[in-house]
Amino acid sequence: MNRLSYLILMKNKPVQPRLWNIEEFPFHPEKLNHIETLMTVGNGYLATRGSFEEGYEGDIVTTLIHGIFNHASGTAVPELVNAPNWLPFEVHIDGTPFRLVNQNEMSLNPRGGALLGYRQQLNMHIGLLRREALFRAESGSIVRIVFERFASLHDEHILGQRLDIVAVDGSPKIEVTAYIEHTVTNNGVIHWTDIKTGHTTNQVSLSAKTTQSDYRLGMSSTLLATGDMTITVDRGNQRPVMKSVFVLPHQESVTLVKLTTVYTSRDVTNPLKESIHKLENAAIIGYEKLLNQHQSEWHKYWQDSDIQIEGDEIAQLSLRFAMYHILISAPRHDNDVSIGAKTLSGFGYKGHVFWDTELFILPPLILTQPELARNLLMYRYHRLPGARHKAKANGYEGAMYPWESTDTGEETTPQWGDPQPDGSRIRIWTGDNEQHISTDIAYAVLQYWRWTGDDTFLARYGAEIILDTAVFWGSRVETKNGRYEISRQIGPDEYHENVDNSVFTNRMVVWHLEQAVSLVHWLKANTLVDYNRLVESLNLTQARLELWNDIIKNMFIPFDDAQQIHIQFPGFFDMEYIPVSHYYPRTASVQAILGHQRSIQTQVIKQADVVMLMALLGEEVGASEVMVNNWNTYFPRTDHGSSLSPSIHAWVAAHLGLDDIALEQFEHAAEIDLRNNKGNVQDGIHGAASGGLWQAVVFGFCGLYLDEKGEPVVEARIPDHWKSVTFTVCYRGERRQFTITPN
Amino acid sequence: MNRLSYLILMKNKPVQPRLWNIEEFPFHPEKLNHIETLMTVGNGYLATRGSFEEGYEGDIVTTLIHGIFNHASGTAVPELVNAPNWLPFEVHIDGTPFRLVNQNEMSLNPRGGALLGYRQQLNMHIGLLRREALFRAESGSIVRIVFERFASLHDEHILGQRLDIVAVDGSPKIEVTAYIEHTVTNNGVIHWTDIKTGHTTNQVSLSAKTTQSDYRLGMSSTLLATGDMTITVDRGNQRPVMKSVFVLPHQESVTLVKLTTVYTSRDVTNPLKESIHKLENAAIIGYEKLLNQHQSEWHKYWQDSDIQIEGDEIAQLSLRFAMYHILISAPRHDNDVSIGAKTLSGFGYKGHVFWDTELFILPPLILTQPELARNLLMYRYHRLPGARHKAKANGYEGAMYPWESTDTGEETTPQWGDPQPDGSRIRIWTGDNEQHISTDIAYAVLQYWRWTGDDTFLARYGAEIILDTAVFWGSRVETKNGRYEISRQIGPDEYHENVDNSVFTNRMVVWHLEQAVSLVHWLKANTLVDYNRLVESLNLTQARLELWNDIIKNMFIPFDDAQQIHIQFPGFFDMEYIPVSHYYPRTASVQAILGHQRSIQTQVIKQADVVMLMALLGEEVGASEVMVNNWNTYFPRTDHGSSLSPSIHAWVAAHLGLDDIALEQFEHAAEIDLRNNKGNVQDGIHGAASGGLWQAVVFGFCGLYLDEKGEPVVEARIPDHWKSVTFTVCYRGERRQFTITPN
Repeated sequence: MNRLSYLILMKNKPVQPRLWNIEEFPFHPEKLNHIETLMTVGNGYLATRGSFEEGYEGDIVTTLIHGIFNHASGTAVPELVNAPNWLPFEVHIDGTPFRLVNQNEMSLNPRGGALLGYRQQLNMHIGLLRREALFRAESGSIVRIVFERFASLHDEHILGQRLDIVAVDGSPKIEVTAYIEHTVTNNGVIHWTDIKTGHTTNQVSLSAKTTQSDYRLGMSSTLLATGDMTITVDRGNQRPVMKSVFVLPHQESVTLVKLTTVYTSRDVTNPLKESIHKLENAAIIGYEKLLNQHQSEWHKYWQDSDIQIEGDEIAQLSLRFAMYHILISAPRHDNDVSIGAKTLSGFGYKGHVFWDTELFILPPLILTQPELARNLLMYRYHRLPGARHKAKANGYEGAMYPWESTDTGEETTPQWGDPQPDGSRIRIWTGDNEQHISTDIAYAVLQYWRWTGDDTFLARYGAEIILDTAVFWGSRVETKNGRYEISRQIGPDEYHENVDNSVFTNRMVVWHLEQAVSLVHWLKANTLVDYNRLVESLNLTQARLELWNDIIKNMFIPFDDAQQIHIQFPGFFDMEYIPVSHYYPRTASVQAILGHQRSIQTQVIKQADVVMLMALLGEEVGASEVMVNNWNTYFPRTDHGSSLSPSIHAWVAAHLGLDDIALEQFEHAAEIDLRNNKGNVQDGIHGAASGGLWQAVVFGFCGLYLDEKGEPVVEARIPDHWKSVTFTVCYRGERRQFTITPN
Repeated sequence: MNRLSYLILMKNKPVQPRLWNIEEFPFHPEKLNHIETLMTVGNGYLATRGSFEEGYEGDIVTTLIHGIFNHASGTAVPELVNAPNWLPFEVHIDGTPFRLVNQNEMSLNPRGGALLGYRQQLNMHIGLLRREALFRAESGSIVRIVFERFASLHDEHILGQRLDIVAVDGSPKIEVTAYIEHTVTNNGVIHWTDIKTGHTTNQVSLSAKTTQSDYRLGMSSTLLATGDMTITVDRGNQRPVMKSVFVLPHQESVTLVKLTTVYTSRDVTNPLKESIHKLENAAIIGYEKLLNQHQSEWHKYWQDSDIQIEGDEIAQLSLRFAMYHILISAPRHDNDVSIGAKTLSGFGYKGHVFWDTELFILPPLILTQPELARNLLMYRYHRLPGARHKAKANGYEGAMYPWESTDTGEETTPQWGDPQPDGSRIRIWTGDNEQHISTDIAYAVLQYWRWTGDDTFLARYGAEIILDTAVFWGSRVETKNGRYEISRQIGPDEYHENVDNSVFTNRMVVWHLEQAVSLVHWLKANTLVDYNRLVESLNLTQARLELWNDIIKNMFIPFDDAQQIHIQFPGFFDMEYIPVSHYYPRTASVQAILGHQRSIQTQVIKQADVVMLMALLGEEVGASEVMVNNWNTYFPRTDHGSSLSPSIHAWVAAHLGLDDIALEQFEHAAEIDLRNNKGNVQDGIHGAASGGLWQAVVFGFCGLYLDEKGEPVVEARIPDHWKSVTFTVCYRGERRQFTITPN
């Protein structure tokens, strides 16, 4: 009797930590691009979608590196560049290429081979993607193939891959090839030029630079095989290929490792040389140790950032999934880049940075990983010149942040949408008129400061952001009808563009100026050097402060006294009323169902707008009766056409004691990526929905806030079936743990 | 402001009890037949798959009524007959038929209409299937459509359907039609003849009889509409159709109800008349009250049969799902029918009854719904004549139950499988040689008796089953080599057919005869009347009892003294060894991968065989060292090619303290129907896997058994992450609740 197989069984199925895994089983080719997004691995420097080592028809293979933008000629705006593909790791079994081909598995000699079984798991606890397949070659040989990959969190320039092959039936001849694929594009747009490949006896390498922005990249790979490894140049593709060929005896197994390193000119002067150097070191350290180092870093991340929910496994898994994707896209060692709306996991929104980062993604980082939050805020600080340039170009003073931001800090929102079926294009006004972004950034700076107590940051960097954007607003408001107004705005509800006196914008500007006035006093009292510097550089005259105070007092806040509600903007209620709830269940947005032309003339709201205001400012917005009235007015009109909406509604509903709705909205938010309920996950993770989910739990259900003394307290109201919620926040450098139970 | 929509929103989304729902969202046409099976509704009298009221290409619409078998000419064996379809309930919106068509939802006037949204939920807590759709007609009108259906558990002849329509956009003309579809077949096989349709002013009806078995059926339907309802006869189909036509004003809603009643000649002499009479009563009671009555019965079912697991939601949902499907297929008022291997939820195995019922499905009923269990055992009692006939025909004495059983009690296993691609057919030997079925039934009788203390049942009915099958075994064993042997058997491992001395069979026969001997003594001591009756009718001479005792002592039990293991059958270890664990992950069975020819010459085992023996007889099988050795030998060789296997392995692994494996096997079992991991759920629910799952928890993890005094006790070992398991069992007419916690 051979008891070996029993042991092998255990080895083949590593115990997976519970509720830490995203699994695909069996293979779902119809969800290929959705699952590629979910299975993204990353380390805050770069991220790579869960595309297959051997490729698959229709896959969207991307590796996006923070900060590497390029504005290709003939395109409207710059975009984050798809880096050379480090994944290729291909296997031939008795001449049959391993591919996920679904053939009749009953054939003992299937043409092109046959996939007999498949399971893929992303272990979020250690940031490891693992894919197992059972495959029959044309020869009839059966192999079990296991791929693993990670982007090292310990050394962000190192990418590890492992390949295990077991000869399950037959003694096949195995040919393994590995290389770097440099013929990559962003949906056909070419961003790399000056591509040079090279190789030595044991590694291949590549250098390239972006066509417009001149970023240079170096990438190197090696294949660690047990047997011989040769490198030959594929002349057709000008590509050096590493190859290992051997016979695998029946029931024996073999392990091969591919290591890849990458640098850009944003990191070092000579990226190619550094990548080669790093690769040599990595090969000496070896896969196992690299993986262990990586795992230790993840362990630290989760110690601080995990929320544990007992009594709701879907909530538990969704929250970890959300936090995982925030963590893999948050730069650790770079304070000159930020997280785009789709993180680094897809081409959506071209890697551009929106308010999503400051109001949705930042809060979980501020409260659990403040160093990472600081990096992201510094990105905005470094882009003050761009914001000043935009203000000036529009005839204003101070700093006016772009609605979409890249490396340059200039406005990069495209002016026109992609062509409609009839060839017409819709004008995109957000870059012109969605001006609340400047205040959103100020909000994040203050939230960071209040939680961290990082006075140095506030004095040296943050204050300048808050004050120069306040200067902008002072120049932006209009004096009309004996009060201050702001015309032609887009609030969070982007279905209604260029409206006058968006209540969200007007009220947030008042709040912004209040904070600016307080901040000036704080600077004067605490750091005269910075006070003097900023008063001089930003020209903070007494007249300017008086103007701010006057705006605070006399800003027009649209409000219906009879109904005791805020008015989203004057005229809103004159439009057609559509009961959005009738449109249930729906997959598309109500806007898509009604058509663009009609929907903009209705009261259908894209996403939390007045409700967003209530989330951000809480009871400052109005008495609790007004809050309830606002909710009852706007919630039934809201389409949730944006993934940013449900989590904010969950948060506010929890505060209003609308328990069932809070839970329903939370679950809606939790499903956005995992169940692809907006149908566009192939473009990347909804970063804001991820951050919003965390806020719905911590700020919403758990009711965490800073009290009048600035101390964190909770006023919790968790769903009935949740037995407990445990989380840790970092308050002024000190970790505080909260455990909420129904009692 | 119109706050109506807020209320409607709440109405539209009834609060679903947590972990009681199976949901499909959005529409998954690629899983159509899988989900149809999952969404089956039933009441122990009949069950109907979750096919759509309006139909869908490729659907498998079935209603199966217990006991209605028919042997159509030209077919090999009788099968459970697909009853006339009571579902048709069709809607036209401005002339566009409502269908689940996925069109470009952006078109405002889509040809053929467009599905804008979809959600289907089976609420297992009350046995209600609900399907919601948002649909745009060609005219541009948008309607929200909600279907509900249930098969009344309160009055099993009543079937209820409700249709709600909301005019979400536009004021469409609505045409609703409802009818009974009588042109039904079993995959093309026609079973109904003498079909007569009829109608009055407010109902349609149908009578028919089966072609060979002469069962008569009557079915009647009425449509309760708010407006006018007319009935016209569709001449082409000879079908009376109920119709209601009206204009639905913008944003108004309408509710229509369809009620259907059904009887067969198994219930009453005049099924048509009874169905009409019942329908009239049902219409007076009305949908709401019928649903309430139905719901109350479900409430009682779950009070006794629910297992509550804290700490594992997938386990919780899977267990409820398993029990739901057992309950909807368990006859309540009929002790002359039993549950087929695929319950009443699909055509698989033609509705035939196997050992699956007695050893897998019965235990949860014995312990939680003993009245239902008794009905199923009475089915076997009533089929003793068939079993005696089979014994006689094969040259044996006593009662030899058929491997596959229908209404007649005769052997109905087909002799030949369906043709292979090359036209050849494989001989099916189970009907000839899988003889352990008789002992399996005896096992169930005794299990029922031990838990219920139902002495009357044992004395009057059960004893006759146990003893006459013991008589069979006395005539079946062979005297060879100075011992008793049994040749040409098929044990649970059906990959190895017609083997001599299957250890499972031989050992179970010994156990069976031991029980028979004890039972004779018990009868003599407790009920002399029954004792005398049975001694006479079964000819239980002293010589026969001596023979039984001699077989008990001298039966050949294949055992390897050196290895201290049971041998599945002599010669087993001479075959090729295949490490099954290498074939991971796989979707197909190892048999399918290796091919039938090769696999039967290997040690690959279809399912728990020696391990099944260990589950059934526990420590009676051998010392704990032998149990461990057996496990280590057979588990690595087991394919789990049968859905019966994983749950038994979970149960035994839990007893052996193999916690990780127990959990893994449990999860495998839990996924069989819900994730379709055997790929054949379209043929119906795996009834045995459902019952096995319950046993894995109660007998395996919770370790429930009857101690030497016959009292229920637990020796629990639940998975680490399970916080608690709570269940109720009925012991001798008294409910006992157990709560297991890790401590």
